[in-house]
Amino acid sequence: MRQIVILGSTGSIGTQALEVATALPDEIQVIGLAAGSNWELLAAQIRQWKPAVAVIYNESKFTDLRDTVGATETKLLAGMDGLLEAATWPDAEVILGAMMGAAGLQPTLAAIGAHKAVAIANKETLVAAGQIVMSKARENGVTLWPVDSEHSALAQCLLGEKTDDITKLTITASGGPFWEKSREEIATAAASAALKHPTWTMGRKITIDSATMMNKGLEMIEAHWLFGVPMEKIEVAVHRQSIVHSFVSFRDGSVKAQLGAPDMKLPIQWGLLGGTRAAGDAPHLDLPTLGRLTFEAPDDARFPAIELARAAIATGGTAPAALNAANEIAVQAFLDGETGFYGVTDCVAHVLENHANCPTPALDDVLAADADARREAHEFLRSVA
Amino acid sequence: MRQIVILGSTGSIGTQALEVATALPDEIQVIGLAAGSNWELLAAQIRQWKPAVAVIYNESKFTDLRDTVGATETKLLAGMDGLLEAATWPDAEVILGAMMGAAGLQPTLAAIGAHKAVAIANKETLVAAGQIVMSKARENGVTLWPVDSEHSALAQCLLGEKTDDITKLTITASGGPFWEKSREEIATAAASAALKHPTWTMGRKITIDSATMMNKGLEMIEAHWLFGVPMEKIEVAVHRQSIVHSFVSFRDGSVKAQLGAPDMKLPIQWGLLGGTRAAGDAPHLDLPTLGRLTFEAPDDARFPAIELARAAIATGGTAPAALNAANEIAVQAFLDGETGFYGVTDCVAHVLENHANCPTPALDDVLAADADARREAHEFLRSVA
Repeated sequence: MRQIVILGSTGSIGTQALEVATALPDEIQVIGLAAGSNWELLAAQIRQWKPAVAVIYNESKFTDLRDTVGATETKLLAGMDGLLEAATWPDAEVILGAMMGAAGLQPTLAAIGAHKAVAIANKETLVAAGQIVMSKARENGVTLWPVDSEHSALAQCLLGEKTDDITKLTITASGGPFWEKSREEIATAAASAALKHPTWTMGRKITIDSATMMNKGLEMIEAHWLFGVPMEKIEVAVHRQSIVHSFVSFRDGSVKAQLGAPDMKLPIQWGLLGGTRAAGDAPHLDLPTLGRLTFEAPDDARFPAIELARAAIATGGTAPAALNAANEIAVQAFLDGETGFYGVTDCVAHVLENHANCPTPALDDVLAADADARREAHEFLRSVA
Repeated sequence: MRQIVILGSTGSIGTQALEVATALPDEIQVIGLAAGSNWELLAAQIRQWKPAVAVIYNESKFTDLRDTVGATETKLLAGMDGLLEAATWPDAEVILGAMMGAAGLQPTLAAIGAHKAVAIANKETLVAAGQIVMSKARENGVTLWPVDSEHSALAQCLLGEKTDDITKLTITASGGPFWEKSREEIATAAASAALKHPTWTMGRKITIDSATMMNKGLEMIEAHWLFGVPMEKIEVAVHRQSIVHSFVSFRDGSVKAQLGAPDMKLPIQWGLLGGTRAAGDAPHLDLPTLGRLTFEAPDDARFPAIELARAAIATGGTAPAALNAANEIAVQAFLDGETGFYGVTDCVAHVLENHANCPTPALDDVLAADADARREAHEFLRSVA
């Protein structure tokens, strides 16, 4: 029985993690929950799961949460202090880091410092602060279990293998809703079209990242940090069926791939169980589903995000944090109809070009770079509107 | 540096193993060679590799071999005694068992008894005597490294995994030269057509086994023994491109596959290096090669060999040995134009039906079953000719 805390329990990953826990009552006990602002769903989750601790990050929602939950044995907390307490909760063995955005960074570092196993679903943590997070994990002897389907696939393929034997990590991409469209069609597409993902059901921000393929750029940076592999050895292949979740090439010419139905419950479960397997709730593949698998090279002309991610890692320091922050702002602007599709990558490119890089950042430098990049992104978007 | 002995050095696997050794002079030293009858090629190999020991199994060729090699520091031996001496050669660390047919069985057991690592390319060893070989390997703490591309793929996918987590082993099949043909067309096909394999270059016997798909039946039996997985959990998928060499399904719904160019050097090297990797001579896959991968269910009506293999394992005891022996005789008859394509599986089915099974065989029982099945197969083929 693993005692877990879910940071981000009301989001897409968090609610699916609770489905995983429901299917594995003998393996997983949920002892902590934390949400950003959705106090109504968090209150319902508290009543159902009776965790030892629950946190609402947005402090202005605390009263609503407390009044709705009523009499409870759950310790109710708020704000970053609450997140940090939940992330280091003494009985917790596994912390699932599934908060959106930069809010996930400090709790993840706290969990690592408290020697918790960390199942990491928060891209920003590794993208913005990969160097800091990985060196803290090494210092504390903590393993990070990826929850992204792509990184879970890579980690599964790397079981029993040596990092030195890796010649290439290939992250697969569905290609998103615009893969068959021309640059002109994409340029004028509305957010509603970009939100129609062909194979995956995910949150809105990540669905837009999938349309721009910035999600692949972020995943390349994550893979770079998680597996200690240089960016030159990390590639993207467009695989429309979303069945092969990624693959690893080794120096003897062998390639190992992980496959599964396009459903996040499998990587969530594998991460929560620390790389062990159980018959859970995730769907299984059959031969007809496998059917026909295709692989194509990406297209930087129509989808420049991958090259931006490469540039950010080549610059190093705080550049990836700036990339990520600018992207968050620009995606929101696109969702709000305030910029076009290519406004997103144009904005990120602009922020990267004007970024005052800090080559060996501490956490404060990362947070400052994040804030600067958001400001710069807003300004750029206003200037081109 | 691994010191290896190649049993079957003049065959298809043996000569490719020498290419692997040529490409890895710092990793592999060839200290023993053994051939069946091809003394001319063996003599050339002795001159090139200067092994400590060399064996010609066919004793009538010993004089020719000795006279051709001339003055040498290589110890020249003949017959089964010679094979057994080479298989247990004191300095040898790895024995590659690549003899054709039942001749490989005793040397493999001897190598295991002498605590050598065994790279196993001789299907018959595991098919005919899987129970004996595996229990001897367990007793001696010896790992068997598969050299078949399919079993190498499964073993690579199983690194870091638990046998209990396996829900299915899927062995891929190219489908061979007759996959697109009707039963009527196949029934009247000549050996020359069956020898035209679409993706692999292999020996004549195994190429016919590929056309009948008996090779998949034999591989299922091998996988059953090598990985300790029941036959109900072992399946075949037709994959025309021969890029995915096999895959494993786990109980959480995850699937891991191993891919590579259709070239035996990769699995040979992986086996010789005891599951470690080196930049050798095997070709690498690229994305365009990957291109498009298809998977189909097998067709028992046109290719009944897979069901025969299932039946043999269900019977157990010496039935798989009988299946294998009958198949060897019937394939030779087909190659010699003495029976039609379906004569091969008809013959195997007849021999299995009439087999007096020994449920818990010792080695002598296996050898007797082998001899009986050959006799019965010859009689059947004469009776229907």
